[in-house]
Amino acid sequence: MFNFDYYNPTRISFGAGKIQDLDKLVPQDAKVLVLLGGSSARKTGTLDEVKRALGQRESLEFSGIEPNPSYETLMQAVALVKAQQIDFLLAVGGGSVIDGTKFVAAAAMFDGEPWDILLNWGANVTQAMPFGSVLTLPATGSEMNNASVVTHKALKAKLPFRNDLVYPQFSILDPTKTFTLPERQVANGVVDAFVHITEQYLTYPVNAAVQDRFAEGLLQTLIELGPQVLRNPGDYDIRANLMWVATTALNGTLGTGVPHDWATHMIGHELTALYDIDHARTLALVLPALLTVTQAKKREKLLQYASRVWHITDGSDDDKIAAAIDNTRNFFEAMGIATHLSAYNLGAEAVDAVIAQLQAHGMVALGEHQDVDLAMSRDILTLAL
Amino acid sequence: MFNFDYYNPTRISFGAGKIQDLDKLVPQDAKVLVLLGGSSARKTGTLDEVKRALGQRESLEFSGIEPNPSYETLMQAVALVKAQQIDFLLAVGGGSVIDGTKFVAAAAMFDGEPWDILLNWGANVTQAMPFGSVLTLPATGSEMNNASVVTHKALKAKLPFRNDLVYPQFSILDPTKTFTLPERQVANGVVDAFVHITEQYLTYPVNAAVQDRFAEGLLQTLIELGPQVLRNPGDYDIRANLMWVATTALNGTLGTGVPHDWATHMIGHELTALYDIDHARTLALVLPALLTVTQAKKREKLLQYASRVWHITDGSDDDKIAAAIDNTRNFFEAMGIATHLSAYNLGAEAVDAVIAQLQAHGMVALGEHQDVDLAMSRDILTLAL
Repeated sequence: MFNFDYYNPTRISFGAGKIQDLDKLVPQDAKVLVLLGGSSARKTGTLDEVKRALGQRESLEFSGIEPNPSYETLMQAVALVKAQQIDFLLAVGGGSVIDGTKFVAAAAMFDGEPWDILLNWGANVTQAMPFGSVLTLPATGSEMNNASVVTHKALKAKLPFRNDLVYPQFSILDPTKTFTLPERQVANGVVDAFVHITEQYLTYPVNAAVQDRFAEGLLQTLIELGPQVLRNPGDYDIRANLMWVATTALNGTLGTGVPHDWATHMIGHELTALYDIDHARTLALVLPALLTVTQAKKREKLLQYASRVWHITDGSDDDKIAAAIDNTRNFFEAMGIATHLSAYNLGAEAVDAVIAQLQAHGMVALGEHQDVDLAMSRDILTLAL
Repeated sequence: MFNFDYYNPTRISFGAGKIQDLDKLVPQDAKVLVLLGGSSARKTGTLDEVKRALGQRESLEFSGIEPNPSYETLMQAVALVKAQQIDFLLAVGGGSVIDGTKFVAAAAMFDGEPWDILLNWGANVTQAMPFGSVLTLPATGSEMNNASVVTHKALKAKLPFRNDLVYPQFSILDPTKTFTLPERQVANGVVDAFVHITEQYLTYPVNAAVQDRFAEGLLQTLIELGPQVLRNPGDYDIRANLMWVATTALNGTLGTGVPHDWATHMIGHELTALYDIDHARTLALVLPALLTVTQAKKREKLLQYASRVWHITDGSDDDKIAAAIDNTRNFFEAMGIATHLSAYNLGAEAVDAVIAQLQAHGMVALGEHQDVDLAMSRDILTLAL
């Protein structure tokens, strides 16, 4: 196991009815900006529930944070925070709203041009506003980590940043708030969590028994419950388990002391930035191809994955790895998510375009060995055609 | 899954050489009391390493915290804290030293007789001194939770308390510090962690998929690595994994949103208080008997345990449960830990004595159903003869 530092101070309030905890979690004298995505929180009544729980606190709303939160939109929220002297942010939505709120929290107190935060991966953040979240879409894990991804529309750039100052002070996870999600978002959430886990697990062995067993347990849970949630969207226990899987997948539990990959994410981000494909769908496009192309260096973990997660016992080691990758692809497809670029009417021109973007953003040495260069990324994308 | 609140702000520095992190983790102007158990930290050089890392900070030492930390000893430390105007505590040792430090942290700022903290399970703690820990014996999980157990020698009472104010600010986990542990303590640590997991797992199903998979993963890791550490005491990776299992077993990860048992611990505490048997050994004495006596109400989880942890597939359900309990007992015995009272030269008189103590301490409705009354505790102890 690698040496590691672990720290995660986010409070979690989990369960039906937990939005009422806002009254004890948000400072009594706070002036709150509630940040929202589209209109769903308003339509479903979640916003009303939030406002009731906030009671007498002064609050404003900022709506319109996009599925891939944009710098352009978020800077409007920053302007509102400054103009209205807001002192507490409350994200109500999914990972995009929470990611966006993290950027607003940092940008509102940043000295200089806030896009520099992304260009420095967050290392230049020295203060941030306090904020919490009410999660309505389990997927990204943003509700319990210190990471955020922001898209600069004008630059067609989607970049991540992280900093301990942007851990949410609290996150409220009420599984009943996920009942009304469109099936597309539910499926996206399952695949997003799945790939968060593989990014931290399918690398090379470092004798990290706990992290491996935990990753395998979460993957098995997604494989078991993913198809079930599509058939039984109103089942509380399925929703609750998927919600807690998604949070646990990216709150540090799996990622301490082990190598990380993240090449699938970095390549996927460019597909979203260029073609506006849902984040999770870009991951489903890239991962099976990436595992195929990089299987020689991931061999031991792929065999462990084949055995412990998919219970594959037949055939040669090569057969087992191929079967595990096939099962992964079939699982995504069974969730209704395409795994080939052709399904998005994209061809070889998209490969060229993504490679150009990766080059422009310095993404030329990805993966746990920093050996996923532009040539290998091209192989991966070509295999995903 | 039950509704739950989760919060764990303890920072973890994990790995070889991490004691040097003390310099950034302890406030520069702190006046530190280093709390120690016996002489091992001094003999092994760990104390010297700690003092070097503390650099110019003023520090004192308090030695002699016992394996079951006593109120009597800890109150001497409280007196020293007050007399010397100490403002930061640093536990260097195992769970007993850390548990003791938690009590000192709370007692030093407690208005009244500090034993009342135990009589109120910690609910009356309203402030506590800041403290960190350097863990040298992986077992109890105290390094990353808010719980402590203290023994009042004069009263022959061993009682727990918990409060969010006694989370360590940080804990440093350097697996190389465990190389010099006596085999007895290593085995105790493995069994202690094992039973911490079963207390949170072997109850009744509430559809908590993540917590179940995580518990099963940790149990499998202990079963795999426990015997290995006795054969290869100098293997860093085995030590590192066992250390992280023990911390993760009791830091909230497994225990959120699920029923808890803890009857084995409560009965075991009385055995320690009366006969000074090592904590872990009392757990090994009680657990197999408790699972046998309570198997009807634990049936579903025992079958899941038999299947997922022990991979038992043959026989009737009753056979599988019996085999899983046998395997558990055999695992403890293979770690060199006896599972019968007779091995400690105790007979029926001990059963009477423990029952009297349980009654005196109000431990008359234990377990996840609060149905382990004195009669059932007597059955359990009788089966453990």
